Amino acid sequence: MKELGYYNGTFGPLETMTVPMNDRVCYFGDGVYDATYSRNYKIFTLDEHVDRFYNSAGLLGIRLAKTKGELKAILNEMVSKMDAGEMFVYWQATRGTGVRNHVFPDAEIRPNLWIVLRPVEVQPLDKKVKLITMEDTRFLHCNIKTLNLLPSVMASEKAKQAGADETIFHRGDRVTECAHSNCHMIKDEVFITAPTDHYILPGIARAHLIKACKALNIPVDETVYTVAELMAADEVLISSAGSFGLAAESVDGKPVGGKAPELLAKLHGYLWNEFLEETK
Amino acid sequence: MKELGYYNGTFGPLETMTVPMNDRVCYFGDGVYDATYSRNYKIFTLDEHVDRFYNSAGLLGIRLAKTKGELKAILNEMVSKMDAGEMFVYWQATRGTGVRNHVFPDAEIRPNLWIVLRPVEVQPLDKKVKLITMEDTRFLHCNIKTLNLLPSVMASEKAKQAGADETIFHRGDRVTECAHSNCHMIKDEVFITAPTDHYILPGIARAHLIKACKALNIPVDETVYTVAELMAADEVLISSAGSFGLAAESVDGKPVGGKAPELLAKLHGYLWNEFLEETK
Repeated sequence: MKELGYYNGTFGPLETMTVPMNDRVCYFGDGVYDATYSRNYKIFTLDEHVDRFYNSAGLLGIRLAKTKGELKAILNEMVSKMDAGEMFVYWQATRGTGVRNHVFPDAEIRPNLWIVLRPVEVQPLDKKVKLITMEDTRFLHCNIKTLNLLPSVMASEKAKQAGADETIFHRGDRVTECAHSNCHMIKDEVFITAPTDHYILPGIARAHLIKACKALNIPVDETVYTVAELMAADEVLISSAGSFGLAAESVDGKPVGGKAPELLAKLHGYLWNEFLEETK
Repeated sequence: MKELGYYNGTFGPLETMTVPMNDRVCYFGDGVYDATYSRNYKIFTLDEHVDRFYNSAGLLGIRLAKTKGELKAILNEMVSKMDAGEMFVYWQATRGTGVRNHVFPDAEIRPNLWIVLRPVEVQPLDKKVKLITMEDTRFLHCNIKTLNLLPSVMASEKAKQAGADETIFHRGDRVTECAHSNCHMIKDEVFITAPTDHYILPGIARAHLIKACKALNIPVDETVYTVAELMAADEVLISSAGSFGLAAESVDGKPVGGKAPELLAKLHGYLWNEFLEETK
């Protein structure tokens, strides 16, 4: 199997899979998701992603029917059946199926579980990314990994149109995160990243970057920083499940970073080694 | 036919209708919608709702495949086939179907058109509603009728749990609108409503309320107002496609309004008469 879809226990090739028109995701985006990568048929940082998934669901009052162990077992089994061991492993839960009505459905309506696997490889860390900036007009629940992603869609398309890889959001002067990554900088040998409040997603890759800094004796400062500070940083990094900590070469067409290559190389080495070790 | 679903030309009973798992609405809520009511098999204010629908789509770069005339013809034909003439007439368009990727799909991918009809009656205007208040944590695109509706879902559920009918959103002190209605007040014989910026949906019912005020020589002030001003208003009103201008009896359990019953009755008479005339 090259690509595989799953919906409430039904499996099939992704393009042939269907879902009820009345799944609440179709009217409200009423659901949460999470995603990571597999290598050698092993799903990287699965426990952490599943923990965050249940946290997202809990914050929205979505009562998942399966235990964390049951979900992990399904994901692991699905990955084991694929043609390749390198997969994008994506899953989501929606609040249930029913006639369109804003209020939650009756308690007996169970959430729907979706899974999508498709072949993809983690990007090598020596790639340098181009970024653009954009006012952060998203809602104030960015800590929850929801299916209300229109502002990220618009920002990603804007980046593509500009020939860039990602969009940095800022609320006024303050950098929050990117359209589908966290954002960080290195300045004077300190790793600086926005605190995990309601403005950013608590990234798993972000947590691993911080862990790497601690292992490497790089001080970490979780604090608010501005676009101007980012432009003057020694290095600018973005991180997500598929890009553990890519460095940027430009923001809005202006060169950034490149001033702490040795520190960056140490971080990259640590993160890549961790990925290889945990998926060997 | 009691309830009817439509997806890209396929019709069927709503509960049996399915859509592709890869419709972008399922991953991003990537679409827009609109809705109104029919009576006597006539769709009320259809032109205005269709105009707003195309405007919502245009603001998000969704290039609808059908003309406004074609969409109206489909909606009118569907309504004509139902068992009853009183329907909730709902339609949406999503950006298309394809493998999950934030950026827009290739230009040859066409948007998907959805329609849902189900029996419902417009609420009589003598009902008094109970409201609660809540901080407005939504994104800054509330002028676009998108399928990113999680904050409205959460707010509607909160209202239900509190035994109320709707939730008034406020950004700090400033009243914006409700979870699925606009909000207004009457004070000293003036109709006061928030301006149509990015914080509120430009409601069709709101526009008709303003038109009614003009016909009845009630001054209209489109301006920012606070929760405290709302609590002290002579009347508090909410409006949506299904509730042309219902008056509130309480906000957060405290009595509100009820101090301009004659003016309210004039407005209600005008709005109800307009509805009956246009759907006779």
